[in-house]
This record gives sequence, C-alpha cells and structure tokens, in this order.
Amino acid sequence: MAAAQLTTDALAEKHRSTLDQALDTIRTRAYWSPHPEHPKAYGENGSLDAAAGLDAYKSLLDRRFELDQPGTDGWTGGEISPYGPALGVEYPHADIDVLLPAMRAGMAAWRDAGAEVRALVCLEILARISARTHEFAHAVMHTSGQAFMMAFQAGGPHAQDRGLEAVAYAYAEQTRTPGSADWSKPQGKRDPLELAKSFTPVARGVALMIGCNTFPTWNGYPGLFASLATGNPVLVKPHPRAVLPLALTVRVAREVLAEAGFDPNLVALAVERPGEGIAKTLAVRPEIRIIDYTGSTAFGEWLETHARQAQVYTEKAGVNTVVVDSTDDYKGMLSNLAFSLSLYSGQMCTTPQNLLIPRDGITTDAGPKSYDEVVTDLAAAVGGLLGDDARANALLGALVNPDVKARLEAAAGLGEVALASREVPNPDFPDAVVRTPVIVKLDGSKPDDEAAYFSECFGPVSFAVSVDSTTDALELLRRTVREKGAMTVGAYTTSADTERAVEEVCLEESAQLSLNLTGGVYVNQTAAFSDFHGSGGNPAANAALCDSAFVANRFRVVEVRRQA
Amino acid sequence: MAAAQLTTDALAEKHRSTLDQALDTIRTRAYWSPHPEHPKAYGENGSLDAAAGLDAYKSLLDRRFELDQPGTDGWTGGEISPYGPALGVEYPHADIDVLLPAMRAGMAAWRDAGAEVRALVCLEILARISARTHEFAHAVMHTSGQAFMMAFQAGGPHAQDRGLEAVAYAYAEQTRTPGSADWSKPQGKRDPLELAKSFTPVARGVALMIGCNTFPTWNGYPGLFASLATGNPVLVKPHPRAVLPLALTVRVAREVLAEAGFDPNLVALAVERPGEGIAKTLAVRPEIRIIDYTGSTAFGEWLETHARQAQVYTEKAGVNTVVVDSTDDYKGMLSNLAFSLSLYSGQMCTTPQNLLIPRDGITTDAGPKSYDEVVTDLAAAVGGLLGDDARANALLGALVNPDVKARLEAAAGLGEVALASREVPNPDFPDAVVRTPVIVKLDGSKPDDEAAYFSECFGPVSFAVSVDSTTDALELLRRTVREKGAMTVGAYTTSADTERAVEEVCLEESAQLSLNLTGGVYVNQTAAFSDFHGSGGNPAANAALCDSAFVANRFRVVEVRRQA
Repeated sequence: MAAAQLTTDALAEKHRSTLDQALDTIRTRAYWSPHPEHPKAYGENGSLDAAAGLDAYKSLLDRRFELDQPGTDGWTGGEISPYGPALGVEYPHADIDVLLPAMRAGMAAWRDAGAEVRALVCLEILARISARTHEFAHAVMHTSGQAFMMAFQAGGPHAQDRGLEAVAYAYAEQTRTPGSADWSKPQGKRDPLELAKSFTPVARGVALMIGCNTFPTWNGYPGLFASLATGNPVLVKPHPRAVLPLALTVRVAREVLAEAGFDPNLVALAVERPGEGIAKTLAVRPEIRIIDYTGSTAFGEWLETHARQAQVYTEKAGVNTVVVDSTDDYKGMLSNLAFSLSLYSGQMCTTPQNLLIPRDGITTDAGPKSYDEVVTDLAAAVGGLLGDDARANALLGALVNPDVKARLEAAAGLGEVALASREVPNPDFPDAVVRTPVIVKLDGSKPDDEAAYFSECFGPVSFAVSVDSTTDALELLRRTVREKGAMTVGAYTTSADTERAVEEVCLEESAQLSLNLTGGVYVNQTAAFSDFHGSGGNPAANAALCDSAFVANRFRVVEVRRQA
Repeated sequence: MAAAQLTTDALAEKHRSTLDQALDTIRTRAYWSPHPEHPKAYGENGSLDAAAGLDAYKSLLDRRFELDQPGTDGWTGGEISPYGPALGVEYPHADIDVLLPAMRAGMAAWRDAGAEVRALVCLEILARISARTHEFAHAVMHTSGQAFMMAFQAGGPHAQDRGLEAVAYAYAEQTRTPGSADWSKPQGKRDPLELAKSFTPVARGVALMIGCNTFPTWNGYPGLFASLATGNPVLVKPHPRAVLPLALTVRVAREVLAEAGFDPNLVALAVERPGEGIAKTLAVRPEIRIIDYTGSTAFGEWLETHARQAQVYTEKAGVNTVVVDSTDDYKGMLSNLAFSLSLYSGQMCTTPQNLLIPRDGITTDAGPKSYDEVVTDLAAAVGGLLGDDARANALLGALVNPDVKARLEAAAGLGEVALASREVPNPDFPDAVVRTPVIVKLDGSKPDDEAAYFSECFGPVSFAVSVDSTTDALELLRRTVREKGAMTVGAYTTSADTERAVEEVCLEESAQLSLNLTGGVYVNQTAAFSDFHGSGGNPAANAALCDSAFVANRFRVVEVRRQA
C-alpha cells in the first residue's frame, strides 16, 4: 500500500469534533445535523453548487461507470428514470468468486487501524458525499422518482445524517470495552493473580447491503456505514432500478479508503444482470456474515430464513395506521395528514395507509364532524394541496415503477372513492407518471373490506376506515401492528385517556407513535440522532435505525490475556 | 397487588452502589466481585453458614417443591445425583396454555417500573441467592457432579457475578437513550419546529431460558437476568437432570418480585415429564420472543433454525485447542495444563481438548523436549496432581452422566494412551463415578486420527496431537475454530513472532486467547466483569457472556413524539 495521503492526524483535525457532537446528540436526542438541508448552502469549500452538481450528474450518463474493482467480468445496467429518460449507465459486473476474496484482503489492516480511525475515514467518505449532494440529488431523483427537493434532502443530508449516526453508534459500541486492562485478583496472604488483557473489536466478515428502489442512500447508508465502521468490508448490491446513487457512494468510499492507506476493495459494488437475482446467491455465500436489506416482506423473510450464516437486518413492509379520535386543531390535522399522504406519492415505508375514524364522527375545535365530513374534508385538503400542478409535481414526484401504478388503479375498485387520483402533467419530463393519491372509504366491520386495509398497498393509496369507536380503532391498531407490522403510528386525540390508551398499544406492540401532529412535522419523517426509524419489535422491521442493537453484533471483541 | 414491602428507596439504598460499581467495572474490566468466594465468608448478615446451608438443602429433598404457579397440572421430577442418591424432589408441571398468558399479565407494570427499579429488583434477587450460596452449592453439586468447592464457587459467587454483570449491561443499555428529549429544529426566520419526545424501553415478550446439566446457574443466570432486567418475563426450563438449582432461583425471584409489588409470575419454572421434550414445544410458541440455550450443537442449531419468532442466544459445542510451541516455564506450563485438564473431569465447555505439539519437540527453560517427552511429562503432571484420592475427588467431581463415561472409555481406543484414566473411589459417595482424564496421542497428519481430534469429545479426554511445526499447528487451530468453533484457545510460546501469529489467528477467527498461563489462572476459567466467555463469532456460540450485543436486542425502544 502506498503511503497514506490522508493521515490520521488530518482526519482527526477535520472530523473528530463532528464525531463527538454526533456521540453527544445520540445521547441527548436533541436536534442537530452537520449536513445543510438548503440547496443554496452548497457551492463553497469544495462542494458543488446546483449547476456544477447537475453537470456532474450529466457527465455520468450514457457511459461506463468505472470502478477498477477486481473480478470485473463484463458490464451491465439499464436504469430508466421514473421521469422518463434512460440513464444509459453501465456498471462493472463482478465475478464474486474473485471479488469476495479480494474484499477480505484488507480486513486485517482495517481492523488494526482501530475504531477511531475507521470512524474518521467513514466521516471523510460522508463529507465527500456531502460536498456532492447536488450530484447525488439528481441521481436519487432519477432512480427513485422523488421530486428534486426531496431527492436532495432525503437522499442527501438526511441520508448522510443517518450514515453518520450509524458511525457514531458503531464507535461508541466498540469503545465501551477498553483496549487493555490490568487485572489483579487478591489471594489473601499470597500474591495476587495478575493478568494483562487486551480487547480488540474484530469484524464478522463481508457485509452485504441490499439497496432499495425508493431510498437508495437513506435506507442504505445506515447498514453500509455501521458495517464499515465496525471493520467489515461492505459489498453494495443496489436495486437494479436504483444503482447510480450507490455506485457513486462506492466510488467515493474507495477513493477515500485508498487515500487513507487502506485497501479500496473494502467497499465494492455488485450490480446484477437483468434477471440474475444475485442477491439470493450472495446472501448465502459463506463469506457474507452481515446483511442489510430494505424491501419486500417476502424477500426479507427469505433472507431471515435462509441466510443463516449472517446477521440479517431487515426493513420490510408494514401497514401504518392513524387513529383519528378528536382534535383541537381540525384544520391543522387535515393539512398535516394531507401532506403526509401526498409526499412522494405515498411511496414511503412510513406513509400512513389506514385512517381509522369512528363512524359516529369525532369532536373538533370546529364542532363535531361526522365520518363522512372528516373524509370529505381530508379529500378537500389533499385536493387543495395538490391543486396546483407545479406544487403537485414538487411534492409527489413520479411513481417509481409500474407496480405502484397498477395498485393505485386497482385501489379505486376496493370501495367508495372519496378522492380520485388524477394525472399531473410534468412539463419538464413528459414521460413521468405523476399521480395524486386516492382515498377510498372502507368499513372496518366488513370482512370484505378487511382484505383491502389489512395488507400493505404501497403507493398513493389510503383507506378511510370507519370503526365503531375509538376503542374499536385501538383494537384494530393493535391487531394491525402485531400481525402486519408498522413503521409508524399516528393518533389525534384531545382525551388524556385515549392518549394513554394509544400509547399503551404502541408500547405493548412496539410501534413508534406520533401524537397530534398539526404543524410542520409529519408522521412519515424521522430525524437522525433523535428519532428512531422503526422499532425492530414488530413485523415491519427486525431492526431500528439506529440503536446499539443495530451495531453491537456487527463485530465481536477478542480478548487476549497474558500472565502479568 | 398489595403494597410493596420492598420500596424503591430501600432497594436503592441497598443496591445502587453495587450497580454503580458493576457499571464501572464492565468499563475498566479490572478485578471486582461483591460475592465472596470463600465458604467461611458466609453465616453473617442473614446468610447461611455451611451447616445451615446443608440443612436447607436436605430439607428440600424427598418432597414436593411448591411454587404456587398458575396452571400447575401435576408434579414431575426424577433427578439422581451424579454422586449416587436420588434427590426425590417433585416440581410443579405447567400447563403452558395457562402459564404463558399469566406470565404476560405483569409485563406493563414491570415495564413502567423503569430500568433502574428492574435492575435493583434483580440485585435483590441475586443478594438473596448469595445469602443461600451454601444451599445452592449442594444443589449444584448434586445435579452437575461438580465437587463441592467448585459447585460452591462456580455455582455460587461466580454465577451470581455473571448474573450481576448481565444486569449491569442491561441497565447501561436501556439508559443510553434518555427518557425524554426536547427537539427544536431551526426554520430560518420562521418559528422552529418543536417536539417533545419520550423514549421507553419495552420488552420483547416472554423469554425462555433453557438450562444445562453441568452449570445450571453459571450458564443460566446471564440470560435469565438479562431478559428480566430488560422487562421480559422469564420462563426457566431446566435440564431434567439439573432442576433444583434453577427451581430455587425461580422461587427466590418470585418472592422478591412479589415483595417489591410486582407479579411473581414474571419468573416461572417449566419442568418436563420424562421424555416430554418440552423445550421444542416452548421454543416455537408465539409468546416466546427470546431464548437462551446452553447445550448440544444439534439442539442449538435446531433452535436457531426453527425458533424464528425469537431472538436466540446459544452456547453450543466447540473444540478447544492449546498450541504448545515453546516455554520459559516448563514446569509451570505442565502444572497449569494438568489442572485445566483435570478440573471437573474436563466437563467444561472451556476445557482444552487438543494439545498441538510439534513432532520435533519444543524448546523450554529445561532444555529441548521431544513430543514424546512433553506428552509423558504432562501425563506425569496430571498423574501427580491426581495421585491423592482426596485431592482427586476435590478436583474432579463426578462424571455428570453415562454418556461422558462411555466417551471416556471409547477414547482409549482412538490412539496410543499416554495417560490412562483411573477410577477414583469416593468414600462419601460410593456410587459416584469419578475418573481421572485420559490423554491419547494422535498424529495430526493422519486422516484417521483427524476424525477423533476434529470433533468435540466432551469429558475427561484430551488429545496430544503431533504436528509438523507450529505453523502447521496454527493452520489446524484456524481450521478447528472456523469449522468446529472454540470457547477457548491457549498457547505457549517464547517467540514474539509466534505470539503475534497465534493472536492473528484468534483475531481473524474470533476466538478468546490465553497466552503462557503457568500460574493460578487457567484457560478454562473466566472472570465476570473482565473476561468474555466465548466470542459469539465462531461456531461454538452465537453470543458472548456478557457484552451489549447480549442485551441490546432483548428490548426495543418505543418513541412517542408530540408537538410541543
């Protein structure tokens, strides 16, 4: 290995205070982020501004994406933007029998570097990604279908925050045991027994990160950085429709590793040929000891069942519920819910699906409202929010794939349509499939309707489910979380008793609860360093982003003891 | 629930400083224990002295062991001491369809008590067990076959230490996230977004602790207390030959829980009828969300494969190796190894099995020693250590079951016997099966011999395996750990290069290493708060005792956020 261009001192000078702030914030859970949310914050100190970011993105298109990985046996790729254009990027295809052993070659040096250096290198990777946030934003937009501003924020600073959070947890966890200890056990009048002990965090092996289509960076970075910071090489297997943001990530990581004097093959990319299904092959390889996955319940459960040689962290599907009992800010509730249902066309694992509303109506600051009134008013709120095409495009983004469109179209047949979906033309991208959400009325007491609301309908579809009472709503909430899982639960109530009751359901069923949100925070958004994403305690996910359980088993501690 | 006799203040007054010391020690990993090792230290402050402990043990025999658990549908039991006598104790047999729901009833109150109160209640349980260490010692001795002093120490203070260590880790883990946080996100010129957040550790569900025959308390307490301290009810399923120590534990736990105002059914006992195989039934019940298991690889792997609804922590079998390269204290090495091979007739998961010795011999402070000399001298050291029957009985204990005796007898046919096993008469217990270890010479280059040394032969059997060189030994060590797993590795060398090489193998294969032990610390012993037991990173165990990975996933954190 050539002499490192990035010295430990330089890395510490640049990043140690950021790491310390992250370590402090995961304990206080106050607001903090080192990654600016506003596009105009970029363009200085070596970061790309809007124009440079767009240019950088464009320069990636219609060519090969070189990575100089071992074992490249061909080129593959075929991403088509949900906004229409084919990206035309080809990625190296890996012979995993060559790549996997090569990824292990640098493990000992990466281990010997220690937890702090690993953390600092990860922070340098994140800093370089941050500087290219405008470039990443376009890559995320044209793979996920997110509108530009969301792709910028969720795919940029928010994803980087989640990566940094994972690094902080990984560092904290690895340094809980000291590097060495002197142990002296008294033996009465005899000399004490004395041992010198050393404790070294060691990696499990190669980690596989299986990316998703909708949030390639946001959902990918926690696992990627948690594994890398704990000493494991990481093989990144993107969703075939959302390769580019993760390929860029891998390229940056490899550059930084090499500059810091480590083997760049500690991070590598595995892109599959059409229909190759490489995730299944990789997942059961003996070298793969950790898997992070975001995606369908079916494949998540397949991984949990079959990848027995690995620690498997999955985020799968769930059915998110909002209990509507009463409110002292009817208008705020409606506008808050309208935004949550609309953002990214409901294509978030955290978007509410079932709105449980008593059939006898609710009390509000605007007087009693019947079930029908609530649904009608919500439909009007969504309609108003998305009435302007420019605003609708900016909020909705594009449907990520034809399956979502098919589900949306089928949803209208499931019950009485309270708000019909409409096509929104996109002047910049005429081929984009942009749709407003549909709201369908269902009856919580009808078994036929249960088939619809009791399974995930991913996309811009929500169900206004009439229930006999709030008590009935809480029982349905409990059953939904227990059997189907949930990433989020929301509730609106002015009753302290109901608030306690919904909290109790969420505590017992392990679901994250947002109460009475009527302003600028939405049930489907979580903030790194403060909010947990998922609980890891219900069927929607077996891990939370991010807690120590997410990092503690990615490494083991080897003790060497010597007679002193 | 009646008013608590044990108030939180009283518990804190009594135990908070012990908890703090434990929390401090798991970070420094210095020596510490609040539980005296010497039998004479007991008898004051309400603890039972030797005579009272023996009386208490005897009063348990030949009668029903009452627990007042829900769902008792009969009585069962049939423990026979490895020292001969039948214990004659009958335990309640549980209808699990009644018991499991009853165990869940107290969960909400146990959760609401919070991490500190749960820890303090666990410390009170441990303190009461500690006061009855003499009673437990007999119960452990007459179920495991350990000699009295070992049953006293390993089954008493050392087990209590491991339980306390788990409580400390559980407390530390649950308090890493604050109970509440105020979150305020600046919005430029607009008002900040503000949320009030609460974070509550919540249990996963009922935990099942499946006990083992040889160390019912030592191997059982970490899982039991880790689960209880993190809010989970614990169902204790003892090995059918080692029920009494865990039945006593359950009784004490239920007493303390009730006195502290909690539901005693948070801890319950499940004893099986002969041949009932209740562990398999319980392990896949949906109520069971955590399993701790110590025992055979076959059943451990069955649990890992089938109990998919639960977090499964297993300690299974491994093949422990000692690499003998060179030493500057030949006599010390021999006596240290002789003790390790003899203690509890090698019936420890940490006992060395394979001694890898270069066929060209080793260098020592007493001059060069050939392979044959090393083996002969080690045999003589074991023979000398166990030459006196009284001392032999005190070190060896009794063979725990007929399978161990059968393996011992078969081992003599596997190769040239360097040290034959001998029967040791036990004057106090004429029916006890007491045997000294056998040492068998095998050739590391012969495939036929590999069948013997490359699988676990649990009991007083070790193999002196000749190898071509230390390099050869390290490759065999690596392969053994990787394929068969290891709880411990030992090595003797005066070469800094060899030391580094063996460390590298252990770091790469995730095995705990003891180097050049020649005094009063043995490779098969670990100390709570300082040493890790197992690594959780090789096939011998998927968890280490005790680290945060062992506790962090036994609970989840539920966040409730409200607009501020």
